[in-house]
Amino acid sequence: MNRSAQFDIIRSTSEEAADEVAIEEPLEIRVGDRALSVTLRTPGDDAELATGFVITESVVKSHADIDAVRHWGSPNVIRVALKEGVSVDWQRLQRHFYATSSCGVCGKTSIDALRTQSRAIESDSRIRHAVLTRLPKLLRENQQTFAATGGLHAAAAFTTEGELLCAREDIGRHNAVDKVIGSTLRDGTNAGVLMLSGRAGFELVQKAVVARIPIVAAVGAPSSLAVELAREMDVTLIGFLRDDRYNVYSGRQRLA
Amino acid sequence: MNRSAQFDIIRSTSEEAADEVAIEEPLEIRVGDRALSVTLRTPGDDAELATGFVITESVVKSHADIDAVRHWGSPNVIRVALKEGVSVDWQRLQRHFYATSSCGVCGKTSIDALRTQSRAIESDSRIRHAVLTRLPKLLRENQQTFAATGGLHAAAAFTTEGELLCAREDIGRHNAVDKVIGSTLRDGTNAGVLMLSGRAGFELVQKAVVARIPIVAAVGAPSSLAVELAREMDVTLIGFLRDDRYNVYSGRQRLA
Repeated sequence: MNRSAQFDIIRSTSEEAADEVAIEEPLEIRVGDRALSVTLRTPGDDAELATGFVITESVVKSHADIDAVRHWGSPNVIRVALKEGVSVDWQRLQRHFYATSSCGVCGKTSIDALRTQSRAIESDSRIRHAVLTRLPKLLRENQQTFAATGGLHAAAAFTTEGELLCAREDIGRHNAVDKVIGSTLRDGTNAGVLMLSGRAGFELVQKAVVARIPIVAAVGAPSSLAVELAREMDVTLIGFLRDDRYNVYSGRQRLA
Repeated sequence: MNRSAQFDIIRSTSEEAADEVAIEEPLEIRVGDRALSVTLRTPGDDAELATGFVITESVVKSHADIDAVRHWGSPNVIRVALKEGVSVDWQRLQRHFYATSSCGVCGKTSIDALRTQSRAIESDSRIRHAVLTRLPKLLRENQQTFAATGGLHAAAAFTTEGELLCAREDIGRHNAVDKVIGSTLRDGTNAGVLMLSGRAGFELVQKAVVARIPIVAAVGAPSSLAVELAREMDVTLIGFLRDDRYNVYSGRQRLA
């Protein structure tokens, strides 16, 4: 089972290279004949993932309720078969999962939906090396709570000239990005760069696409699905932005 | 708006101290008269969070659809009022959020549910300082994909003697924990410690409670809600476990 994939990238030194990226793919977890959840996961150990999920989310009471866990027609669909006489309270689950989602769109369905709903980014804005490499320091300087607790994600919007528009912290990385994008859309400011303190997953790049921000720069690693979406939507995706170095995974033309 | 709270802790040096912890609290996002989502967030900028969420998740098309965003009867409920004539496709959303949740239980409702469904952990197992401080290195040695990509979360189950039962990596921290717990429950192995490569949030401690694992140890910081849940369920919660140091947030009696 492959857990990483190679992508051709450009390093900050302008050197071309192949980079190993963690694979992110949707997994549909089914219980009996019904779909319970779709999660973005790294392939491998899918039966264990589904087993742990249905028990720790109290879909079933214990492992003794499970008859078998097997892939179901696709490597990205796993089915939990229950023992005879074991029932699931679907009404409670529907309320429950509906009410608690905070992870945004995921999976193939939404990639297809994005294709039809979103146009590729057409911005011809550019960012200079000296501006880009200054962003992580500016983000850190605006992380007040992180300094106290060591426990928060941060996101910020910048212009392509490196002017800080908005920086926000949150225990959830999606929330930090939603706060930043909510602020820039409300104020009508023209964000050129979405900067992330951590990793760049599919859902964060997707939020940038919807908000029409042409450049996403992350201190951490991107996922495979994030790279694929960025390439398809012509988002400039920068990873491992630390000190004066970074990797360019997509949209190189915006680097002046 | 407070983004962090103080908790009394014990340091690995046995010294008592006060530690600043990032606050995690549920926020219910309402659109008009309906609840759309509950997310675990750091309080502050809630109107921006709700604005960014409803736009980037395509609940509404643009900021022009929004009339006002205000708290609604509670600091943990925010309501997005739409302009006259703007409608929301609730049926699509219900399918959508139902299908895409991967974040587990959250919010006050589920804390109440846990109180009635779960008993506090009663295990009298103990772990020695020398064993505990060896766990991060053992976890890292089993992170194969991280070494290649720099992009994965890891989780592992150990006995309280420090024997590795199972280590798993995933792009999603919940998935890594579900894989580990799925493996130990399936095999019937007796996990004493759940070790996490990153931060310890509410949902990960909750999964340990359901799986009856008495000790949760994290390389990163805990959240306020994680500390509160651990104290209520008598889980031993260790944070910032690095080299030979750590903080004990709950359940000190299990440290031999």
